[in-house]
Amino acid sequence: MRALTARSARQRHGRFLAEGPQAVREAVAAGAALELYATPEATDRYPEIVRDASKAWTVTDEVLAAMSDTVTPQGLVAVCPTTTADLDDVLAGRPRLVAVLDRVRDPGNAGTVLRAADAAGADAVVLTASSVDVFNPKCVRSTAGSLFHLPVVVGRSLQDVVEGLQRSGSTVLAADGTGELDLDDLADEAARGEVRAVDLRRRTAWVFGNEAAGLDDAGRSLADAVVRVPLHGRAESLNLATAAVVCLYASARAHRAGTPASTSGRTSPTV
Amino acid sequence: MRALTARSARQRHGRFLAEGPQAVREAVAAGAALELYATPEATDRYPEIVRDASKAWTVTDEVLAAMSDTVTPQGLVAVCPTTTADLDDVLAGRPRLVAVLDRVRDPGNAGTVLRAADAAGADAVVLTASSVDVFNPKCVRSTAGSLFHLPVVVGRSLQDVVEGLQRSGSTVLAADGTGELDLDDLADEAARGEVRAVDLRRRTAWVFGNEAAGLDDAGRSLADAVVRVPLHGRAESLNLATAAVVCLYASARAHRAGTPASTSGRTSPTV
Repeated sequence: MRALTARSARQRHGRFLAEGPQAVREAVAAGAALELYATPEATDRYPEIVRDASKAWTVTDEVLAAMSDTVTPQGLVAVCPTTTADLDDVLAGRPRLVAVLDRVRDPGNAGTVLRAADAAGADAVVLTASSVDVFNPKCVRSTAGSLFHLPVVVGRSLQDVVEGLQRSGSTVLAADGTGELDLDDLADEAARGEVRAVDLRRRTAWVFGNEAAGLDDAGRSLADAVVRVPLHGRAESLNLATAAVVCLYASARAHRAGTPASTSGRTSPTV
Repeated sequence: MRALTARSARQRHGRFLAEGPQAVREAVAAGAALELYATPEATDRYPEIVRDASKAWTVTDEVLAAMSDTVTPQGLVAVCPTTTADLDDVLAGRPRLVAVLDRVRDPGNAGTVLRAADAAGADAVVLTASSVDVFNPKCVRSTAGSLFHLPVVVGRSLQDVVEGLQRSGSTVLAADGTGELDLDDLADEAARGEVRAVDLRRRTAWVFGNEAAGLDDAGRSLADAVVRVPLHGRAESLNLATAAVVCLYASARAHRAGTPASTSGRTSPTV
């Protein structure tokens, strides 16, 4: 099990580890915990998690510590299948809000964006082929259970993903500090009910790029528009997760306010 | 200099280290770099930083590496004074937007919130006495230079800070998942120009609590209101930095939209 901290072993076995009460609880609730390992103390402390698991074993603190690379797995580790969603299935569901991560390399960043996407009510998250493995232990931990809440698509090229989203009627917005459109302006227009070429009330997918380099030219040119998060103060930029949450929450607010009376996207006449 | 990675040495000497081109550039621009150490390679690569520094020395890679606890200080380290702002001076400036961190312990979180506060146009950041040292190397790094952009107040109790803010006319909002008010509702009311008891268009200070435990009862009860960031999906909570940036950007948008016609705060008749 300890080997599952390495990507190669996760791919070979099709399994990854969820650690700690928050992630394990969500794994069990999602029916994703194939096997649960708990210390006696954790079994006493979280009886409902252990009760709901289909297969649970009690192990000593030493055995549990040997399974995990976490300093404090808090007595709970679950083995879960590395199940991901199919892009076409996601698109067939006509998602209102999707977060796409391209070339994001830091597992903590990827997990934090996934958690924020869940909180903002996103219907799916996509990590393109050049991004970090979503089942990396640090990424799993950073999602705080959200990994088990929404479909995650992996392994596709950014071009495949963006073109698929556009064909299915989503507006694809690249988040980038160089963007020609200001997020606050888009939010104001949506709040006033103005119908524009880029309308946050439509079904939207946000593309976020590498934490250091941002999106590359190819990534920016694939999108329908490039949008910048306004910098009101003197900060030169925002970090990836910060920019992502501002964009995703702006979409959530615009969606809550309503859907434009005109078409909901580029190619689809209905919502 | 290496000793300055420890809080006790920073306090004794009144100095801390800024590392890497981004932080060092901002330190030099702010006149906060008392001494600059650069490798020959960094001197070639960032001539404008070295040129603008008042005192600059060229050192070998080995010397620079010994000064820093960073894996890659990228050839630049600056010694800066641990200068902080006085709470009364900040309040006298009638700040429109302030971020207050109480019992935040993780330096990366504190730095990320400080950077987000800068981006959202906050006038000051306060770390209460029970929070992490803002001059911790990891915190300095996470601010990405924003530490040198806005006044930072440290060492005061939350009660002192909140009461001072209220006396000077700010509405103090505690950000907490248990909040009775929904941030989106407040943002909608502000956008519609409705005058409410809690109005985001007023001068506002946000209080953010510990990353694991949130704000304690005392912290919540000090505030004028407790506000929750809406969770649209199935995430149980947001991480501290994510929640903070959503709150601060909501205030920035409301401030951009205008100031209410009535009083701008609890006790002050003018803006």
